[in-house]
Amino acid sequence: MLERAQVWLVDDLVSPEMTCYASPGTHVEWVGKRGGRCSVSQDRILQLTLMHAMAGKEVARVKGGDPLLFGRGGEEAAFLRGHGIAVEVVNGISSGTAAAQALGVALTHRAHCHGVSFVTAHTQDHGAPDWRALAASGTTLMIYMGMSRLAGIRDGLLAAGMRPDMPAAVVMHAGDKRQRCWTGTLAVLEGALATGLASPAVILVGEVLTDAKGGQDASG
Amino acid sequence: MLERAQVWLVDDLVSPEMTCYASPGTHVEWVGKRGGRCSVSQDRILQLTLMHAMAGKEVARVKGGDPLLFGRGGEEAAFLRGHGIAVEVVNGISSGTAAAQALGVALTHRAHCHGVSFVTAHTQDHGAPDWRALAASGTTLMIYMGMSRLAGIRDGLLAAGMRPDMPAAVVMHAGDKRQRCWTGTLAVLEGALATGLASPAVILVGEVLTDAKGGQDASG
Repeated sequence: MLERAQVWLVDDLVSPEMTCYASPGTHVEWVGKRGGRCSVSQDRILQLTLMHAMAGKEVARVKGGDPLLFGRGGEEAAFLRGHGIAVEVVNGISSGTAAAQALGVALTHRAHCHGVSFVTAHTQDHGAPDWRALAASGTTLMIYMGMSRLAGIRDGLLAAGMRPDMPAAVVMHAGDKRQRCWTGTLAVLEGALATGLASPAVILVGEVLTDAKGGQDASG
Repeated sequence: MLERAQVWLVDDLVSPEMTCYASPGTHVEWVGKRGGRCSVSQDRILQLTLMHAMAGKEVARVKGGDPLLFGRGGEEAAFLRGHGIAVEVVNGISSGTAAAQALGVALTHRAHCHGVSFVTAHTQDHGAPDWRALAASGTTLMIYMGMSRLAGIRDGLLAAGMRPDMPAAVVMHAGDKRQRCWTGTLAVLEGALATGLASPAVILVGEVLTDAKGGQDASG
């Protein structure tokens, strides 16, 4: 599918080396919304995708992670289908599961929990998730887009009754060679920032992290 | 890695066609814990893996889904590392995200929710998950190993205050060619059984399923 596409519209979370899988002559355009590159709005991405598709091109929207888990893949697919464009979605490895691999932990060890909740700290209405309900659920917490809200996450979970020494971890660039890990506890969650970790990163909180591989770099 | 391994120990949830990726001469052994094939206990699987590894073989434990999400990959890796065996874990596509792809929905559409909770209805102590906390969390619910407990799941979520017409779905054999889907509402969740759906399947409950592709087979 990637080899067949004449146009690639690529998010910033994708590793640059991915582009070596594009066939010669492919139009490769980075449309990331973060960091050093020129920012492209979500509306502009939709219009670009539609424009290339209407021109008869096969377009690959290349995203990091899984497009159906905080990837806005659902919105983009719905928009395109609404314009009569055929869409095929391919699953990927979300940074949350890649982070578990990096830390050497299972997200759902049956001795510890019933499951895992993937939540975003950055919501459409700018409110916080219901930390009380999430803490009460007893699931491992995997928090996306939370690096600018570490204090709020810590305070929310402590106020919800979670113990300060609950194991926690942060994994930056999970699953690619820039990957870096921090391990600690809920009480000192902001310590991840002091070691230089920053967005894009996922934050993990829960008993399953008791045996997580620590250090600033646990990729080995 | 799969081509290099001299021994494959394969779970039943793996598609049979996967074995065509084994190199000639590979010892391929099915060690599934369900269905028609001879049942192999988890202890026996651990011992088999260890035995082949101690004999100097490179062993691939081939699992369906992601080994760190209800896959017992954490337990198996910990056991082997405890015996001095080097282990490398490779992420996979969990049936939950494959189910979202099958249904044409995003698990975390930002208009609907803060995230998604992956939980098992079948726990070590045979207790149920905290349906009240999970319902209060406002996350999409993705329930594994729940097909024999559909009435209990429905009753638990209704008692937790979830509305009877909350959209729900069941996807059997998510991500392989045997895939079948059912869509409906929480109140009639048991209807999935009447259409012939059975384990292995995942159960989805939440607003994001409002636009799910319905029918008994939505694989197209």
